[in-house]
Amino acid sequence: MAIKPIEYENGACRMIDQRLLPGEEVWIDYTDYQGVAQAIKTMVVRGAPAIGVAAAFGAAFAAAAIDVDNFTDFESRFVDCCDVLAATRPTAVNLFWSLDRMQKVARQQRHLPIDQLQKKLLNEAIEIAAEDEQINRNMGQYGQQLLPHRGRILTHCNAGALATGGYGTALGVIRAAVEAGKQLEVYADETRPFWQGARLTAWELHQDNISVTVICDNMAGYLMQQGKIDAVIVGADRIAANGDVANKIGTYTVAVLAKEHVPIVATSN
Amino acid sequence: MAIKPIEYENGACRMIDQRLLPGEEVWIDYTDYQGVAQAIKTMVVRGAPAIGVAAAFGAAFAAAAIDVDNFTDFESRFVDCCDVLAATRPTAVNLFWSLDRMQKVARQQRHLPIDQLQKKLLNEAIEIAAEDEQINRNMGQYGQQLLPHRGRILTHCNAGALATGGYGTALGVIRAAVEAGKQLEVYADETRPFWQGARLTAWELHQDNISVTVICDNMAGYLMQQGKIDAVIVGADRIAANGDVANKIGTYTVAVLAKEHVPIVATSN
Repeated sequence: MAIKPIEYENGACRMIDQRLLPGEEVWIDYTDYQGVAQAIKTMVVRGAPAIGVAAAFGAAFAAAAIDVDNFTDFESRFVDCCDVLAATRPTAVNLFWSLDRMQKVARQQRHLPIDQLQKKLLNEAIEIAAEDEQINRNMGQYGQQLLPHRGRILTHCNAGALATGGYGTALGVIRAAVEAGKQLEVYADETRPFWQGARLTAWELHQDNISVTVICDNMAGYLMQQGKIDAVIVGADRIAANGDVANKIGTYTVAVLAKEHVPIVATSN
Repeated sequence: MAIKPIEYENGACRMIDQRLLPGEEVWIDYTDYQGVAQAIKTMVVRGAPAIGVAAAFGAAFAAAAIDVDNFTDFESRFVDCCDVLAATRPTAVNLFWSLDRMQKVARQQRHLPIDQLQKKLLNEAIEIAAEDEQINRNMGQYGQQLLPHRGRILTHCNAGALATGGYGTALGVIRAAVEAGKQLEVYADETRPFWQGARLTAWELHQDNISVTVICDNMAGYLMQQGKIDAVIVGADRIAANGDVANKIGTYTVAVLAKEHVPIVATSN
């Protein structure tokens, strides 16, 4: 049931303006890469996986607008556009991964006529979006097995459907657990300074009828100390090979608190 | 130099409206106990020691308005008024302590004519205010010895001059250290949900030219992990004989983080 923050249809990529949630649900159509770059920069779209999906459509739109007849000229302009998209957000590794993938596809398909290459790149973006949702669903299935049959789960930031191609990473685990019949209550850190928990997590879980209570970030320790949190799930902007995680400010604070108190800690990207 | 949030002059108790800080400095005159009770309830005045001082003036105003000619009648009405004041705030132990002290003085001085008893009670309130400031200054002297000659101090909530009869408890320690020539920088937790750090701590330290940076509550862990916090000082609504402290939501979170990271932890009331 989860919302998809980015939908492609007839040459336009529609994004829900996440800055206006939960007060207003406004969708904006983007048809060129400059618009997509602006959407990432101004946080119309946010969340590492969603940024990756948006950037793929941005690259596809950039490709479609390149009016040349040979690959060398095409690639030179395409790389410039991808560089603009890459400069929109320093933290989300999916952004760079997604743009690399689009550029790799272009190089692999350099033998194609430019108009077919352009179509190919649009299909690749559509596939990146679909794959992201499927990855989330798979992650949800793996992750939900770690959660108790009945319990209270703390989240930080969003890491939900809104942060991805759909379904969510951290919240995807919660969705999958609820779909598997588990009875969960979510405590959502409000997540200062940008309120992703209060504005986005609470909104999307509420849409799916999953019980959610927003707390101030500083309350998490007290709730844990009172034995009211059974597990913590957070998203991740990046995960290193050794398991280190880079994520939203405050994630480390939650990790220290969890180490002190909580039986189950899971990280999902 | 520190501000006094409650000043008595010519039958009126002036309080700075702390709900409007730091945007506006508005002082309100109170001359009856109902007004003082309202000021505590609506958080014009807050901070356990300041509430104790305010309640003492409230009790003195209540006493002054009792128009009877014998102690039995006086006490019956005085106790009723003190009960109203005591019901304004459940957490601040200074509130109950201060009202008990005023009632004890009344009983001890039961032999006095009512008009002299009323004066005596007003003087007692003035003395409670002066004592509170002196206690803070003494605490500051003791506490500042624990702080390094150069360092970065994390605070939570206010526990400053604004929370007391003047000078401050946690911030009093910082003031005393700065007066002793120590070079300190303060990181103030913004302190959700009521923003006492962002609104009050930052304002009063800025007035005193003490370097202060407001952070989101969830940033404290990261700063500690980066080695950027040398000590933590917080206030306390109550301290039990075994050293347990009851204080503003988020204090426990800071304590767990400090246990994980910080060389010096001090609690002052």
